[in-house]
Amino acid sequence: MNLVLLEQAEVEAGRDVALSGRRYDHVKTIHRAKVGDSLRVGVVDGCVGEAVVTEIDDHEVRLSIGELAEPAPAPLKLVVCVALPRPPTLNKVLQQLTAMGIKSFHFFHSNRVEKSFWQSHALRDEKIGAQLRLGLEQGRDTKMPEVRWHRGFRVFVEEELVTLLATVDSGYFAHVGATQRCPTNTCVSLVVVGPEGGFLPFEVDRLEGAGLQPLGLGPRPLRVETACVSLAARLGIS
Amino acid sequence: MNLVLLEQAEVEAGRDVALSGRRYDHVKTIHRAKVGDSLRVGVVDGCVGEAVVTEIDDHEVRLSIGELAEPAPAPLKLVVCVALPRPPTLNKVLQQLTAMGIKSFHFFHSNRVEKSFWQSHALRDEKIGAQLRLGLEQGRDTKMPEVRWHRGFRVFVEEELVTLLATVDSGYFAHVGATQRCPTNTCVSLVVVGPEGGFLPFEVDRLEGAGLQPLGLGPRPLRVETACVSLAARLGIS
Repeated sequence: MNLVLLEQAEVEAGRDVALSGRRYDHVKTIHRAKVGDSLRVGVVDGCVGEAVVTEIDDHEVRLSIGELAEPAPAPLKLVVCVALPRPPTLNKVLQQLTAMGIKSFHFFHSNRVEKSFWQSHALRDEKIGAQLRLGLEQGRDTKMPEVRWHRGFRVFVEEELVTLLATVDSGYFAHVGATQRCPTNTCVSLVVVGPEGGFLPFEVDRLEGAGLQPLGLGPRPLRVETACVSLAARLGIS
Repeated sequence: MNLVLLEQAEVEAGRDVALSGRRYDHVKTIHRAKVGDSLRVGVVDGCVGEAVVTEIDDHEVRLSIGELAEPAPAPLKLVVCVALPRPPTLNKVLQQLTAMGIKSFHFFHSNRVEKSFWQSHALRDEKIGAQLRLGLEQGRDTKMPEVRWHRGFRVFVEEELVTLLATVDSGYFAHVGATQRCPTNTCVSLVVVGPEGGFLPFEVDRLEGAGLQPLGLGPRPLRVETACVSLAARLGIS
């Protein structure tokens, strides 16, 4: 936690904020904060600044919030679309890519996605929100990413993807062994990552039909989370 | 597991190999292999090819190994040096970067590394070997990486690092907010990644003194495993 993320409702009441639960535990046991210490804080979808610890007891820590005037860091200009992975992988993707600055996630169904993944509690709004907050706190960011779900491959590719592609400069899908190597520092891109085991041939045809270019990260099949971080590092970080 | 990794001793006895334990469980429950199925196999530090499942019972699966003639994929030309992270992070770094094709790991002490990390069972040869094997199996690779440990920061930087730098074209250390952005597709590089919380100023001075250039991955502090994968994707994958 490189920034204590506050909800807008918490700062509307005034300059004094009390933290309990996860944020209290972290500030007390990891930061080992003491009264008088400064902490970096930010407000969801708002600005960043400093707060001073005014009180710590066995249940909460109280902060006095200073002026929050610094903007959040600039987002990465990359839209990330991933075939819905199993829940632990979903959480790794959301946390790590949010920490890197990705602001637009799309998760979609494809043939090798197990249908049970769509029933997981991990997809509930509050669970997703918790992962995104962890990522923002890691990356000293405040701007909440948008996460969308697409339960039909065909509708996703033929309708949603076409709309999304109109908003970016380049669209790619990761494909093991593709001869076009992953470029770097492109302007605004979109990248589609398949499930463990990859896309089926008819899915590859549909993705190419929608205007996406296949790109490779070398001859090795990578786990979904490794591929996502690698693609964000190459296509997203300038 | 995209490749069943066999030990050299297992294939010296002949073309028939019996798998039990972890590899048996994986082939039976994840691959759901049946008698007659082909599996991709490789030998540690050797070649890759196909094997046919000849028997499956409640304890083991027997394979008949075909000709193993394909070479392992080319290594990434990047030496990765990381301040020793906590054991779960160490495992993520080893597994993911081995899957990406990194062959040279150096873990070193620095001021913000907790001394207890050096006592962890995770550093034992057999535990490290297990992580590397998982990475090789993911990346369809056979060439075992080399892992070295450096318990003194000063000796590592002033002696080991100087020797290592003579074998590469460029040497870098990752530093949040460094103005030089991470390049891509360099020839043969070395990169040093600090501990959670970063290097202390005197450590930065020593690294620069050894001839390393600071480089940034943007304004966001990243977790060690995210930074390592990002750097390997940018500096290592051509």
